[in-house]
Amino acid sequence: MLDASVSTSRVHSIILGIDPSVRGTGFGVIRIEKRQPMVVGHGSVKCPASWERSRCLAQITRTLREQIQKLRPTVCIVEGLFYAQNFQTALIMGEARGASLVAAAEAGLEIFEIAPRKVKQAIVGYGAAQKLAVAKMVQRLLNLATPPEADAADALALALAYAQTTSRYSFDPPKRV
Amino acid sequence: MLDASVSTSRVHSIILGIDPSVRGTGFGVIRIEKRQPMVVGHGSVKCPASWERSRCLAQITRTLREQIQKLRPTVCIVEGLFYAQNFQTALIMGEARGASLVAAAEAGLEIFEIAPRKVKQAIVGYGAAQKLAVAKMVQRLLNLATPPEADAADALALALAYAQTTSRYSFDPPKRV
Repeated sequence: MLDASVSTSRVHSIILGIDPSVRGTGFGVIRIEKRQPMVVGHGSVKCPASWERSRCLAQITRTLREQIQKLRPTVCIVEGLFYAQNFQTALIMGEARGASLVAAAEAGLEIFEIAPRKVKQAIVGYGAAQKLAVAKMVQRLLNLATPPEADAADALALALAYAQTTSRYSFDPPKRV
Repeated sequence: MLDASVSTSRVHSIILGIDPSVRGTGFGVIRIEKRQPMVVGHGSVKCPASWERSRCLAQITRTLREQIQKLRPTVCIVEGLFYAQNFQTALIMGEARGASLVAAAEAGLEIFEIAPRKVKQAIVGYGAAQKLAVAKMVQRLLNLATPPEADAADALALALAYAQTTSRYSFDPPKRV
């Protein structure tokens, strides 16, 4: 069953997943094909530890803006709320998320979030799956020669999990942000 | 005594303070004059509760980008780490902060943070001062006809607190972000 937040959404065939983090934001774009989803592009925004945090944030927005312009997704999926070790970590994760969402929102993309547990359930069939299991399943689902690098794999997993919500047997619909 | 993070900084005479928040980001720009600091501009980015969060973030970045272009500050001050009621609040505050810092960093501003307690100490002389006391002191220091609206007052207080760090008898220097 799809609720209003999904049914009023446009149908998207090019999907951007983003896994935000100040030093290594992963991104991945997939295209929905009849037989199976295809990778359009993926990578990560690496920021050296020597960079000030604000410089990293600008780099995240700039890189994602360029990738969106190049790869033309129409919808963006980020990780939903999760728990961090402490308040400071949460604030810093929020900053990376804010920098990512600005790039997507300014480009006019529809934006949804899916909880990490649901992404793992959708991809691996197990909500507490390890990172490597996710990367291997992403590799298989997208028919890649090698597993994508960890940050990009998480981003591709988000895009794939969203793609499932638009299929007939959907799990819980994602939430707009 | 100024430490390296301040002494290597350029001398700034037009200072932007930002108090980030998803629904009401305050901003204020002051200019350092010989006799006393002057207001160049101030206001807030109001986002209705009906707007999705990502739309608010894009609006924050866009508005601050325009204000920076118009008012030409060369340095930006945001609130340093503070404590929120819970993890979700921290994450959402982080998003607003990220959206704000992107605008400042992309415009090439130097960016510092000052802890809220230190801002209050600098402006009111008391680290646990009430919001209204801060607004009234901002009004007096900037010679304004009426106290600025709360969000803008906090932003102006940040800019004024930074201005003190460049004066001869400085309290702790602010931290780069």
